[in-house]
Amino acid sequence: MKKIHPMPVIFDTDPGIDDAMALYLLARHPALDLRAITTVFGNASVEVTSRNGQLLAAFFEQAVPVAKGAAGPLHVDAEREFSVHVHGDDGLGGVASMINVEVSPLDARPAFQLICDMVNAEPGAITLIAVGPLTNLALALRHDPSIASKVHRVIVMGGAFGTQARCGNVTPVAEANIINDPEAADLVFSADWPVVIVGLDVTHETVMSEAYLSSLQGRGGKVGDFLWQATRHYQDFYNAVDGIKGVYAHDASAIVYAIEPEAFTLRAGPVRVVTEGIARGQTIQDFRKPSGAQTPWSGCPAQQVCIAVQAERVLAIFDQAFDAA
Amino acid sequence: MKKIHPMPVIFDTDPGIDDAMALYLLARHPALDLRAITTVFGNASVEVTSRNGQLLAAFFEQAVPVAKGAAGPLHVDAEREFSVHVHGDDGLGGVASMINVEVSPLDARPAFQLICDMVNAEPGAITLIAVGPLTNLALALRHDPSIASKVHRVIVMGGAFGTQARCGNVTPVAEANIINDPEAADLVFSADWPVVIVGLDVTHETVMSEAYLSSLQGRGGKVGDFLWQATRHYQDFYNAVDGIKGVYAHDASAIVYAIEPEAFTLRAGPVRVVTEGIARGQTIQDFRKPSGAQTPWSGCPAQQVCIAVQAERVLAIFDQAFDAA
Repeated sequence: MKKIHPMPVIFDTDPGIDDAMALYLLARHPALDLRAITTVFGNASVEVTSRNGQLLAAFFEQAVPVAKGAAGPLHVDAEREFSVHVHGDDGLGGVASMINVEVSPLDARPAFQLICDMVNAEPGAITLIAVGPLTNLALALRHDPSIASKVHRVIVMGGAFGTQARCGNVTPVAEANIINDPEAADLVFSADWPVVIVGLDVTHETVMSEAYLSSLQGRGGKVGDFLWQATRHYQDFYNAVDGIKGVYAHDASAIVYAIEPEAFTLRAGPVRVVTEGIARGQTIQDFRKPSGAQTPWSGCPAQQVCIAVQAERVLAIFDQAFDAA
Repeated sequence: MKKIHPMPVIFDTDPGIDDAMALYLLARHPALDLRAITTVFGNASVEVTSRNGQLLAAFFEQAVPVAKGAAGPLHVDAEREFSVHVHGDDGLGGVASMINVEVSPLDARPAFQLICDMVNAEPGAITLIAVGPLTNLALALRHDPSIASKVHRVIVMGGAFGTQARCGNVTPVAEANIINDPEAADLVFSADWPVVIVGLDVTHETVMSEAYLSSLQGRGGKVGDFLWQATRHYQDFYNAVDGIKGVYAHDASAIVYAIEPEAFTLRAGPVRVVTEGIARGQTIQDFRKPSGAQTPWSGCPAQQVCIAVQAERVLAIFDQAFDAA
């Protein structure tokens, strides 16, 4: 059952285990209307994430275009290593082969072109939800700066603002999606469109426990079984790193924001990304009272950063998606 | 009355109104034994801060050497502007002329040389308390790296670690002392000596209200009257910026740490300072569980950062210094 006016969404993603969770929620929830999937390097190579995008679209019965995006950041620096220790060689915890479906071919356009085309076709309508490196969004902005005024909203999973005395997950200050392309993120956050940032400050507060994940088995068609298997290795990783017996609801939190923004507390202020030195990849919001002093944040639009979350609402909304199937 | 074994201290300072408060507490408290004052640029030019160091030493009846230090940071970049809008043209809120005393001449040595000499004369004994830019300490380390193993402890007022969702006071992430010489601060925090950092995370929690400052009048000889007058403009500045009807106990907090460390909560981990880009001057501690990954923090010694404070104990200890006079 879809709402009469569900929110049209382009999902920019690097699947990725938690990306798969997010896409499932996005596909199933009546408040959202998935229009396209665009893929990007990140949790694995763009070859792998694009194949996973096709697989997951078919698995979740979403007849939408899947467009392949950037293979690397705006400014390529060095040979990239992918986080196979987190998401597995296949980007889906080693169980991509569980998805036994026929996939549709990729869209002929590169991801940034698909984004520009769809946004221009329905000015004011499209919400972009981006849960990987922000390279595709930056390329779209460069290709057609006019889309900034035509996008309804941008929701980004990424960054770490230290509001819970938490820190980055790659360096003490940098989160993975942002450090994978800091220049792109700085461009996206500085652009004159409304951005909501769902970072580690809130996703680290929302843990899907082993019991929670186990309870998905046998639900949502074959999806619950798949996610249970896909998260076995992923959970071991987080247990080793942070001592949590579960996984963080990173990407799914961005989808929940689109569905139920009241579950989050926002803070307003311009956001910049550090592109040099030891803090490369850090997201910094200037939320102080404007003093008139010129800083690198001056003149940048105020964006919204999530600084608190009602975790139980996020977990409940995700869980309900398995009953709707 | 001095304790039998008070802690010998070299006070590195850029007076500065809150520096004057800190020096008074240091001079009066029986647990501490002031051995020398070294001056540095910061709140005003080193000419002004050195003159203030001489004035305050005489005012507080401290017959100790005052050695003039650095006029600017390790890497000079541009013509420096001093924060006369905070501390006044004379560095003491426009009321330096209230101090009507005969001053002793400056020590013949530059500050870094005095520090090296005193530390080498009593290995293991000296505590360095630094409440300005860390240029003198960095120069001392460069001049004689062996002092790192001979200093008892280094206590620094500076930095901002975002633990109270607070931020910098010059940029969203940078505190004034650190951004005045980030390269020096990075050298001091990375050196193999024990450093305790008393930053905005705790000094912003400790406000000397107008009533508190007013109550100092008529106490401590002429000192209470002087500090009341000196803080009039300083308080207006903080009231305009942060809406507090009082002043932060920045530098005095570092002295209280030396007297009563139990009033503070510490967090351990290596600390680096950002020297490039928009985050220049930011202090970053890696307090995560070591993962074995090589980062810019790897191999740096664990230092201690103050992340919480019992503000009422800081205020009480400072207040008591006016009864002892």
